[in-house]
Amino acid sequence: MDIAIPLFDRFTALDAIGPYEVLSRLPGYRVTFVAERPGPVATDNRMLRIAVDTALGDLPRPEIVVVPGGIGSRAMMRDDALIDWVRTAHQTSQWTCSVCTGSLVLGAAGLLDGLEATTHWAAMETLASTGAKPTSQRVVEQGKIITAAGVSAGIDMALTLAARIAGDAVAQAIQLGIEYDPQPPFDAGSPDKAPQVAIDLSRRVERAVDEGEPVKL
Amino acid sequence: MDIAIPLFDRFTALDAIGPYEVLSRLPGYRVTFVAERPGPVATDNRMLRIAVDTALGDLPRPEIVVVPGGIGSRAMMRDDALIDWVRTAHQTSQWTCSVCTGSLVLGAAGLLDGLEATTHWAAMETLASTGAKPTSQRVVEQGKIITAAGVSAGIDMALTLAARIAGDAVAQAIQLGIEYDPQPPFDAGSPDKAPQVAIDLSRRVERAVDEGEPVKL
Repeated sequence: MDIAIPLFDRFTALDAIGPYEVLSRLPGYRVTFVAERPGPVATDNRMLRIAVDTALGDLPRPEIVVVPGGIGSRAMMRDDALIDWVRTAHQTSQWTCSVCTGSLVLGAAGLLDGLEATTHWAAMETLASTGAKPTSQRVVEQGKIITAAGVSAGIDMALTLAARIAGDAVAQAIQLGIEYDPQPPFDAGSPDKAPQVAIDLSRRVERAVDEGEPVKL
Repeated sequence: MDIAIPLFDRFTALDAIGPYEVLSRLPGYRVTFVAERPGPVATDNRMLRIAVDTALGDLPRPEIVVVPGGIGSRAMMRDDALIDWVRTAHQTSQWTCSVCTGSLVLGAAGLLDGLEATTHWAAMETLASTGAKPTSQRVVEQGKIITAAGVSAGIDMALTLAARIAGDAVAQAIQLGIEYDPQPPFDAGSPDKAPQVAIDLSRRVERAVDEGEPVKL
């Protein structure tokens, strides 16, 4: 069974690697990174490149699709090759998923019209512009579409999906295998909880990234 | 300021990418993946390859070292090139860190003798064989050495390190940027918490991986 993770210039690494680390452990499933053209694909900050061997057209009908986000997802909302691939893959997929601003791509493909969905907290308005009904839940299931909140939420989404596919015990064994017993040193992972100084810093960075600056903070 | 993450054949992706995602956002720091030879480096399950441009010898004295784990770390305990590089880098580093079985490499380099340290829950005995005193804390600080538990613990470690380097507000802004407000669907991320069926499944996989099988579960 094939799990396809499409990558594109300026994706966010953890959006893709969190779900990969969980879903690659599912017995009987293979994760394949795909891109418009085979070759290395660079992340948002240009410090990491993933070697991709498989073109979008080489894997048109995976059982599972997971679209990561990143600042590059804004351009992907208008990228015919990716949008067409997502739309086609969704016709026969068992699950179509996104992490962070990957949901903007699902939305641009017309998959979220009228559905509840989520994205990075700073991208809720853009998500709404695709016809989705944004919610601030961390993992949102609507039929076979699952969207996750920002970046690290892909891990929670993937464990949820693993349980749907293979049952709770397998998902729990995967959680144990990656020792996912989170103990962040702060409780600052959402705008509802973070101190104002951190929110201000983070919003400044989100604006700078929108203007083409590298992702810092 | 340079943060070096050495990669090797059969590393675990999230061990490296969790800290990368956090630390690459630190203002003034650059993350560089290094390897014995430049070229693509494959993960434990062979489903992902990271393109590495920088040889170990090209970055001998980074300010921060983060050694990931993975089944390949067992072989790295006897790899002179990596062990020598770690030992040399540690002489001048500001912080020397590991995730998961990356601590076995620090131990093999003689860095953990008599120190408390941690690793993946299934590798505690091997860690002890290097002279370290294994603890089951998720993040263990001993002077400038920080070790983290299995796979996903690198995210918590990196946020702890970010706070040491740049202060709580910056670390909190990074946590907010990656929306790290974990909500796993199960509480099964440590052997103390996981149901026995998940522990049994996971141990079976750990044994199979030791015998050369792909990482599943």
